[in-house]
Amino acid sequence: MSFFELIHEDKNTGARAGIMHTDHGDILTPVFMPVGTQATVKTLDQTDLYNLDSSIILANNYHLHLRPGEDLIDSVGGLHKFMNWNRPILTDSGGFQVFSLGLQKEQKGQQGKLVKIDEDGVNFRSHLDGSSHRFTPESAIVCQRKIGADIIMAFDECTPDNADYKYTKEAMERTHRWASRCLQEHKKDVNHHGYKQFLFGIIQGAKHEDLRKESAQYISNLDFDGIALGGESIGYNMEATENILRWVMPIIPQNKPRYSMGVGLDPADLLKAVSGGIDMFDCVAPTRLARHGMLFVSTKEDSKRRLNIKNSVFSKDLSAVSKECSCLTCKNYSRAYLHHLFAAQEVSGLRLASIHNTHFMLDLMRQARKAILEDKFSEFIKNF
Amino acid sequence: MSFFELIHEDKNTGARAGIMHTDHGDILTPVFMPVGTQATVKTLDQTDLYNLDSSIILANNYHLHLRPGEDLIDSVGGLHKFMNWNRPILTDSGGFQVFSLGLQKEQKGQQGKLVKIDEDGVNFRSHLDGSSHRFTPESAIVCQRKIGADIIMAFDECTPDNADYKYTKEAMERTHRWASRCLQEHKKDVNHHGYKQFLFGIIQGAKHEDLRKESAQYISNLDFDGIALGGESIGYNMEATENILRWVMPIIPQNKPRYSMGVGLDPADLLKAVSGGIDMFDCVAPTRLARHGMLFVSTKEDSKRRLNIKNSVFSKDLSAVSKECSCLTCKNYSRAYLHHLFAAQEVSGLRLASIHNTHFMLDLMRQARKAILEDKFSEFIKNF
Repeated sequence: MSFFELIHEDKNTGARAGIMHTDHGDILTPVFMPVGTQATVKTLDQTDLYNLDSSIILANNYHLHLRPGEDLIDSVGGLHKFMNWNRPILTDSGGFQVFSLGLQKEQKGQQGKLVKIDEDGVNFRSHLDGSSHRFTPESAIVCQRKIGADIIMAFDECTPDNADYKYTKEAMERTHRWASRCLQEHKKDVNHHGYKQFLFGIIQGAKHEDLRKESAQYISNLDFDGIALGGESIGYNMEATENILRWVMPIIPQNKPRYSMGVGLDPADLLKAVSGGIDMFDCVAPTRLARHGMLFVSTKEDSKRRLNIKNSVFSKDLSAVSKECSCLTCKNYSRAYLHHLFAAQEVSGLRLASIHNTHFMLDLMRQARKAILEDKFSEFIKNF
Repeated sequence: MSFFELIHEDKNTGARAGIMHTDHGDILTPVFMPVGTQATVKTLDQTDLYNLDSSIILANNYHLHLRPGEDLIDSVGGLHKFMNWNRPILTDSGGFQVFSLGLQKEQKGQQGKLVKIDEDGVNFRSHLDGSSHRFTPESAIVCQRKIGADIIMAFDECTPDNADYKYTKEAMERTHRWASRCLQEHKKDVNHHGYKQFLFGIIQGAKHEDLRKESAQYISNLDFDGIALGGESIGYNMEATENILRWVMPIIPQNKPRYSMGVGLDPADLLKAVSGGIDMFDCVAPTRLARHGMLFVSTKEDSKRRLNIKNSVFSKDLSAVSKECSCLTCKNYSRAYLHHLFAAQEVSGLRLASIHNTHFMLDLMRQARKAILEDKFSEFIKNF
């Protein structure tokens, strides 16, 4: 059985339904992957994620390398055992975090360059304690091998969109050389914990059409199990993201899963990316927004599709956050109660809100898949 | 059927097993009541409390009066509906909070006396925004009537242990007059939300034997549904608490439930109070300690009966917090994982720790009840 099965393609859009097979279970696509950066989806525990029927979650190589460290996770039998999650996990290589967290500190005026790139790899400092660390393509793969996610990512350089063309091209070419080195290292041991790990390559090239196409071609020609779209604007600038999707999709092979990294700031963005041919998404926004009291609802319930539960208009509102929702929060609690929990700054409110937004994203993808399989995806988008 | 049924008395100690019958269900005693001050047990939601099989929870009249306000809770049909908890609730009248939170602010050097007591009631300022409020015995009962707990408490003055004898006696006598007024107000409407509310009186008198006995006699002579022990040292100074129990128990009637307010700083304290004849306990300590990473275990597992999960010795420890525990946390997660969640300052760790400590207290009382019914309570204490 191949890793990825393409089940159905929509006739009017690029949308597709598929299945990824892993040793920890199948993942039906399109799929939203809740982000558990530090081996926990913020405010939730894994029984919550089983109740939400999440088929895969994310964790982050950079964060887990710094704390608790890949050797500790390795010594206890890998991340699934460490966090008691027996379904698939994907780890991001940490390329994005090495550069973004390093740059944030530099912008805050800290002395000395926190991130130093050479052909072989990157020196960076921990955002936690300033300690020095180094990732090379090889060490980032070894680190992810020890952590033991089912799907791991190539180590790439995520260039900011405002970098000049010359630098963006250089960085992309280096990322390509790193991609080949990642693959080579990966093939040395794809079953470290006794189950198979799959490696995805990442397309870079910022907002430049020629670079994106070149990168798509290069990454597609390598023996990756899946293809990801990286870059600062992916998910945070949907117009740019949709352009990039149009450029690269004709180049990427049909028989590999496609992952847009960081899409999901707005539920509607997922549908745009699905239309563009994407199978997998992750984004911290649904849980981060939840912790700020922003709750997703349907268009019928609010024209902006989100409520600010802190708004006093909800203080006596006994209806559920969303009448159409079947999550634990909506089945048990009213807007008035959630409003009170946020007003009283109770941690339980953060969790109930996170459960709702995570359910919203997971369920949106379940509904989208059903619509694709029934050849009703265009209609589904229109109604949304 | 009477409110309280005494089922069995231990032959060697004062321990007893009973049942309280309320319109929201029975409460088997002795019982630990998790504290949900602001209509939520911190970090948990009510489905957690059902899973823990908690038979009753607490909320606080002072806090709910300030936020969201008793009129709001009344307008949505009472606290059970507001928070979706269909089992019994007890509200403390807020006497303790009016005085303790007021005094805390005074000690911090804020100008003007924040708490002003007269024969009719108390003026106090909100600890949230400094706004002025007033509770009289009557208004504290009306407030609790609107909130709608199954068991409500008389409004009392909780005198500090370092107050002089004269003031303590005056305050106690005023609390007695207030107790009678609370009863009178309560009888006007005991079924406000369509189910019966029960009112408990509170014995004061600080550390003075004659005052405690006088207070026990006075409160016992009134038509309260239950008798509570209040005061600064109750639960926080177990030697003093045990003395007070010895003084008052011969005076309190057998056929009413007995509640020691604030006992539970250490699980062993519950057993001491049960031995002294107490049926009901509440304490914020189990969940507060949990949020600081202090987790209860058996004597066999740690001589101090608690672990500091933040200790690095647990970083690779794959065993459960307690091997003897059947809570969600111990069934699913290791000490190593909890250690990581606390190190990474993840909110999910606070909840998992709170679930464990709450389960520990609830289960300790379930086991104590079983031991009492089997005439093995002395043995049970010895083994603990």
